[in-house]
Amino acid sequence: MVLKKADNIKCNEDIERERKKCSFDPLELTHLLDGGPEKTRERKEREYYFLSEPELRDTIPQDYLSHKEKYEEAVRKACTLFRKVTQLRDKGGDLEIFRQTLSGMLGSAILKDGNPFTLHYVMFLPTIVGQGTVEQQAEWMGKAWNCDIIGTYAQTELGHGTFIRGLETTAHYDPKTQEFILNSPTLTSYKWWPGGLGQTANFAVVVAQLHTKGVCHGIHPFIVQLRDEETHKPMPGIKIGEIGTKLGMNATNNGYLGFDNVRIPREHMLMKNAQVLEDGTYVKSPSDKLTYGTMMFVRVIILQDMAGYLSKATTIAVRYSAVRRQSELKPGEPEPQIIDYLTQQYKLFPNLAACFALRFNATWLWNMYNCVTAELEEGDLDRLPELHALSCCMKAVCTADAAQGVETCRLSCGGHGYMTCSSMPSIYGLVTAASTYEGENTVLLLQTARYLMKAWQQAVGGMTMTPTVAYLKQAVSGNNGPWSWENTTACIIRAYQQVAAGKIKMCAENMDKRIRGGICPEDAWNMTSVELAQCAEAHARAIMVDKFVESVLELNVSPALKTVLTQLSELYAVYWLLQKSGDFLMFSDVTAQDIASLQKWMEVLLSEIRPNAVGIVDGFDICDEILSSALGSYDGRVYERLFEEASKSPLNKEPVNVSFHKYLKPFLKASL
Amino acid sequence: MVLKKADNIKCNEDIERERKKCSFDPLELTHLLDGGPEKTRERKEREYYFLSEPELRDTIPQDYLSHKEKYEEAVRKACTLFRKVTQLRDKGGDLEIFRQTLSGMLGSAILKDGNPFTLHYVMFLPTIVGQGTVEQQAEWMGKAWNCDIIGTYAQTELGHGTFIRGLETTAHYDPKTQEFILNSPTLTSYKWWPGGLGQTANFAVVVAQLHTKGVCHGIHPFIVQLRDEETHKPMPGIKIGEIGTKLGMNATNNGYLGFDNVRIPREHMLMKNAQVLEDGTYVKSPSDKLTYGTMMFVRVIILQDMAGYLSKATTIAVRYSAVRRQSELKPGEPEPQIIDYLTQQYKLFPNLAACFALRFNATWLWNMYNCVTAELEEGDLDRLPELHALSCCMKAVCTADAAQGVETCRLSCGGHGYMTCSSMPSIYGLVTAASTYEGENTVLLLQTARYLMKAWQQAVGGMTMTPTVAYLKQAVSGNNGPWSWENTTACIIRAYQQVAAGKIKMCAENMDKRIRGGICPEDAWNMTSVELAQCAEAHARAIMVDKFVESVLELNVSPALKTVLTQLSELYAVYWLLQKSGDFLMFSDVTAQDIASLQKWMEVLLSEIRPNAVGIVDGFDICDEILSSALGSYDGRVYERLFEEASKSPLNKEPVNVSFHKYLKPFLKASL
Repeated sequence: MVLKKADNIKCNEDIERERKKCSFDPLELTHLLDGGPEKTRERKEREYYFLSEPELRDTIPQDYLSHKEKYEEAVRKACTLFRKVTQLRDKGGDLEIFRQTLSGMLGSAILKDGNPFTLHYVMFLPTIVGQGTVEQQAEWMGKAWNCDIIGTYAQTELGHGTFIRGLETTAHYDPKTQEFILNSPTLTSYKWWPGGLGQTANFAVVVAQLHTKGVCHGIHPFIVQLRDEETHKPMPGIKIGEIGTKLGMNATNNGYLGFDNVRIPREHMLMKNAQVLEDGTYVKSPSDKLTYGTMMFVRVIILQDMAGYLSKATTIAVRYSAVRRQSELKPGEPEPQIIDYLTQQYKLFPNLAACFALRFNATWLWNMYNCVTAELEEGDLDRLPELHALSCCMKAVCTADAAQGVETCRLSCGGHGYMTCSSMPSIYGLVTAASTYEGENTVLLLQTARYLMKAWQQAVGGMTMTPTVAYLKQAVSGNNGPWSWENTTACIIRAYQQVAAGKIKMCAENMDKRIRGGICPEDAWNMTSVELAQCAEAHARAIMVDKFVESVLELNVSPALKTVLTQLSELYAVYWLLQKSGDFLMFSDVTAQDIASLQKWMEVLLSEIRPNAVGIVDGFDICDEILSSALGSYDGRVYERLFEEASKSPLNKEPVNVSFHKYLKPFLKASL
Repeated sequence: MVLKKADNIKCNEDIERERKKCSFDPLELTHLLDGGPEKTRERKEREYYFLSEPELRDTIPQDYLSHKEKYEEAVRKACTLFRKVTQLRDKGGDLEIFRQTLSGMLGSAILKDGNPFTLHYVMFLPTIVGQGTVEQQAEWMGKAWNCDIIGTYAQTELGHGTFIRGLETTAHYDPKTQEFILNSPTLTSYKWWPGGLGQTANFAVVVAQLHTKGVCHGIHPFIVQLRDEETHKPMPGIKIGEIGTKLGMNATNNGYLGFDNVRIPREHMLMKNAQVLEDGTYVKSPSDKLTYGTMMFVRVIILQDMAGYLSKATTIAVRYSAVRRQSELKPGEPEPQIIDYLTQQYKLFPNLAACFALRFNATWLWNMYNCVTAELEEGDLDRLPELHALSCCMKAVCTADAAQGVETCRLSCGGHGYMTCSSMPSIYGLVTAASTYEGENTVLLLQTARYLMKAWQQAVGGMTMTPTVAYLKQAVSGNNGPWSWENTTACIIRAYQQVAAGKIKMCAENMDKRIRGGICPEDAWNMTSVELAQCAEAHARAIMVDKFVESVLELNVSPALKTVLTQLSELYAVYWLLQKSGDFLMFSDVTAQDIASLQKWMEVLLSEIRPNAVGIVDGFDICDEILSSALGSYDGRVYERLFEEASKSPLNKEPVNVSFHKYLKPFLKASL
């Protein structure tokens, strides 16, 4: 779909035929995903507002530029984008538009290789709001809000990422001058990775170990000026630059930052929670748990983003598979559309289903997050550990699945998926990064596992269980109730819970055995950690299948759409069961015969989804400008677009490249 | 290891300690992998010969250049490289040096983003040798050998890759002028992908559908001049250019090529096999099967290359994991090396084992290839189908495993693995391409499956079975013999064979049921194809585990090295069993209890391999210049090198980027 649908689009015939045989109305799906027709209209208006701006378009694809040119183009476009965002904001737009326009699907379509300004709105501003006192907010918010300054958030260091307690940057309080003195005591203490830090931002929130009166009080946030507002030259004692090229996001200007006795006023420590008084007295924060909030919010956002990127990749791969014809199924017949091969359906449709699984689970986690936050404000911290445990394992599983899904979709497009103009490589670059940032996936799984080990003890002890781990009670009692296996999602969900419970129980027993054998708890934990990570994954999968199926059941949509979504939720449930069949044979009532019949069911589901596949991705309603893919555009004119893209290469602008005269001809003409 | 080891390298202390605790001599491993001390010396000499050449070094990392600059630099370096290769050749070097220097580890270290000349030696020359008559060889080999011309191999088209029968380019014979007329009748018939085709080559072997006397005789190879030898301008009727940027290999200059009534002399058809006589009479090739040879040779090479790239990735990840310290295992203790986390070992060591599995299997397949080729020359085609089936499924499984292995290694390095200077992204770019080229993996698995279905019928029919499918006989008889499970590789190998046989049998039954149910064989095949691809994978895994274990058993090495290699082969066998535990529970004698004890065994193996991990990757002996990784260098100075690499960025060469004055300052100073 283009921004404004022209009437005269000539679509590829195969893809047109697909649209005719669709059994539901894709527009109904679009409205469902947006939250209603009005929301769809708003989204499309917003997309048009940004994407129709000529200043935000690339004159040539950015991949042909040098690294430096890419950065300079990104700054140019980011300024235009920010201007337009601010205009929209001042007209009374939702704050959420910042995020969506800067880091979501729309933003990543405009600045495909990343935006060096993103952290200003996504981290710098929110940290001032969340951690600054009223006075600090008054002072800094105006400047930041009006873009008089541009900020970033400098936490990660060369030597420390996920384990933030290990950060080494120091901020020593000097009561004489009432200043903090910032230093980078080691090479590894240099800040490393923050977006926009390299050449862009002139201010930063810097996270450093706070020392006062000879005591270290752990990490705290400080506002630091990095560059002169007039000249943009680094401030005294600031060593700053960019970290270099990466797998993706090469325009985000990720930077490094070192401090050599950089002095900042006491008031630059963000003191909403902890404080340092004028004489250097440290006043503790009332609660540590409050900082969990932002972290969990970010993880929910990650789930949404993963759903978006995977939807992009499946849209491209499904449309391409409907247009591409190859090989033969039956001698003498025309080459089939590759989407008719069961092996191709097996690559595509489980990922199509995963788009919905991720989306519905993101919504579910978002609702839970809001409930828990509301309880928190009334002083009730009870469900915080559960929410934290869920956000950890779901972030890990969703980012890993999305990355694998995107790669599967890319590979399903054969060689053409390897081309930059397919957009697949850049989608992968964005998605795979999420396995590492905001908590490395294995570390997160083990955090969930720690919660699950405690939950198991509670279940064994007969205590009341919070809803998402209530299934452990059945495992403890050993009574699964009288139920016989049927190919239904209800049975499958119980089996997922049996697997999770079985793995949790096994880990608890293995830990226990090791500790009783004289191994200290920390070593026992490490020795059991491969299984512990797997039990957290099993827990996440049990939740995700359950919430996907439940969400579809509760939907108030047409029977036609309901049927399609039910098929997708069933496919998701069956597919992952078969992927993990060993676990189900070991820990659930599923038998080898059931596996064989589930395989058949899966094959039936693939063939049921087949005629609606193009309709489903049409329902995602990702416009061509956002897809930005020669293989995935709405009209299906794959080969024409591949040619158009090739014609944009600067190498194709001249009949003979200079290297022929400079190097090649002398080489060929030399008598060797 | 650097090219010439300096005595004064100051290594990171942790990595030095690792080397001291190694239980075997890494040099013995190096000699084993090279094929003896003399071969090691030769390899190192060759590496020195190329890598010490100043003209072959980059002045700045290529990732900072524009696409056009990258290409021009690649042509410059490729000319120098070819000159040096030719000098070496003329001194009597082995022909294999071309391949290794152009497309192997050494070549990809010199031209990290690909070499636009590679196909000249790797495809153009060999095709002339393999498919040209004696006269044609006399005419073309001299020119090609002396590099008077530079050629490529143009087979793949925009619309057809793996399914070569579908190629659309036509070559019509005109007896009046005794010429072929080449045409691109459709958009999709344009050649698309050949390396060096864009702006580099002036000749090509073009594969086209041969038409003569009104009959199409299928695809045949033709020599076509693409560009004028003096001016390099495209010849009349030739439409040519590059296809644009890709996920990796951006300097290979992959091109497109269209024909508009391009006339070439009759003698330009390569006629060693089939011929067209002057009057247009078509003379058939004596055997179609002869062309299998090159294809299978290439697949063996792919296995070797995969082993090499995975060795590179594991070297980087293992050394980094020995240097990186993070988080805490026990309160109050220093941060542990991350290689001490069992979860990290679980990511690294199975891939370390896979390096050897791939290498030993490549050797085994190479030996089989040579045997079968020798038999072929004596007219014995018996083992050709078996070899073909093996090369298909092993290529598919090895490339897929290598790609996943490289990504696991990259992710195990956390955020730093995302940086280009880790070399991980470019290794992935090279490895993932191999899942698609030289036969798309799913297509190849299904080719093996077709062979296995026939083999199953033969086993059922009581016929003699070739060695690699002999295990099917046991499955047919249902008699696995009296054996009880033990944690030994012998038992495990039998279980792998049971799984493969069980899956093959199930596929045969499912096919049969469908056909008896009235479904035509072609549809039945498609409906069973997900399981068919999986049975081919199971067959490949049974072979690979078997040959790995067998190869290690037969080695004549020191007990210390033997122990290490045995541990690795055991880990490989156990790891993949656990990955596919569902299959083993369904189709082999392995029970749920066995799975639990195999998990323990795997954990023990991980801890046994742990002290030797750095020694093993040292034994790969990949010098720093080839590794080209800030994270993986021999001295372990990870953080220093990350800084050095960052300092190379052109953005860091000036204190303030021009975009500040042009865009950012006006934006920040504007009252919004």
